[in-house]
Amino acid sequence: MEIFQIEKITDCKYLNLFSIQYKDRAKNIKNWVFASRSQDPDPLNHGRVSADAVIVVPFHRQAKKLVIIKEFRLALGSCQYGFPAGLVDPGENIVQAGERELLEETGLAVTRVLKQSPPIYSSSGMTDETISLLFVECDGSPSNFFNEMSEEIEVIMLSREAAKGLISKQDLKFDVKSWMVLSMFADYGIIS
Amino acid sequence: MEIFQIEKITDCKYLNLFSIQYKDRAKNIKNWVFASRSQDPDPLNHGRVSADAVIVVPFHRQAKKLVIIKEFRLALGSCQYGFPAGLVDPGENIVQAGERELLEETGLAVTRVLKQSPPIYSSSGMTDETISLLFVECDGSPSNFFNEMSEEIEVIMLSREAAKGLISKQDLKFDVKSWMVLSMFADYGIIS
Repeated sequence: MEIFQIEKITDCKYLNLFSIQYKDRAKNIKNWVFASRSQDPDPLNHGRVSADAVIVVPFHRQAKKLVIIKEFRLALGSCQYGFPAGLVDPGENIVQAGERELLEETGLAVTRVLKQSPPIYSSSGMTDETISLLFVECDGSPSNFFNEMSEEIEVIMLSREAAKGLISKQDLKFDVKSWMVLSMFADYGIIS
Repeated sequence: MEIFQIEKITDCKYLNLFSIQYKDRAKNIKNWVFASRSQDPDPLNHGRVSADAVIVVPFHRQAKKLVIIKEFRLALGSCQYGFPAGLVDPGENIVQAGERELLEETGLAVTRVLKQSPPIYSSSGMTDETISLLFVECDGSPSNFFNEMSEEIEVIMLSREAAKGLISKQDLKFDVKSWMVLSMFADYGIIS
């Protein structure tokens, strides 16, 4: 396949649509639309190595519990269970961004980094968004003192039994990453 | 938080941007842009229960290997390692869509469904897209005979050792779901 033109078709601040013209394997000219957080998205920028956002998978060491958050998500118009997460600020590395987001969204402090993923793609059929997963141990008491005005966050600490109970409930909304980690934790007691 | 208006700001066939006006906790009026595959996206449609797409996590029973695909992704302008996946067609259930996509993209046949996730959210900070993960056992020989003209797919069968090798390589691009499953498979020999 050959990409020969990319056009930006919206002019928003944080998220835009781009249209790609390409030739498929039969040499037909076709069109593909995707969303990007970047003004200079991936098809033009193959060497990119930094992630748009960090997702923190926190395990509370003293309580021996997995930490998740229940958060109002505008795109869903309702609450979703997921992990503390946010965009990486300019000049921050993934660990710094993860420490900041965990504190802002839960009041908890990172005590040890267990594992860090490279930048990985959220859903490449529709976007070039990348995230890094940061598996950490943390400590402290949950608090929403540091929440922003646009955030409505409830911090939940889960034993393996509680994770089993939560994930089996119908009608709850889960993020992909949280569902996969909860599923592993519930079935095997493993987080990372 | 209170959503009081949603405006569709593009007119594309498969993916659009929507702008939400809402009041934050301090009653300030703000704006949030998200992408949706739907003409009738989630904030207007709380009761939605079907997934936009299926992601198949296939384990080849005879070979005792995890199956992944290396696929050219237009949004990245390069190849990515991920799982067979695709949109759920009207009238299909998740298992039917998964069986079809696995056959189209790899030539392999589902022999047993191991686990199915509910609809879960890909990246709710930017989209209401939902997927269902379908963990299956499969059989047959890999083939790209059924690939569409817009698909360029290489099927890869991985032992646990091969998964360890692949995931440790820098500069390769992975989808979130494939990285998480590969990581668990490499570290613990567990897939679902």
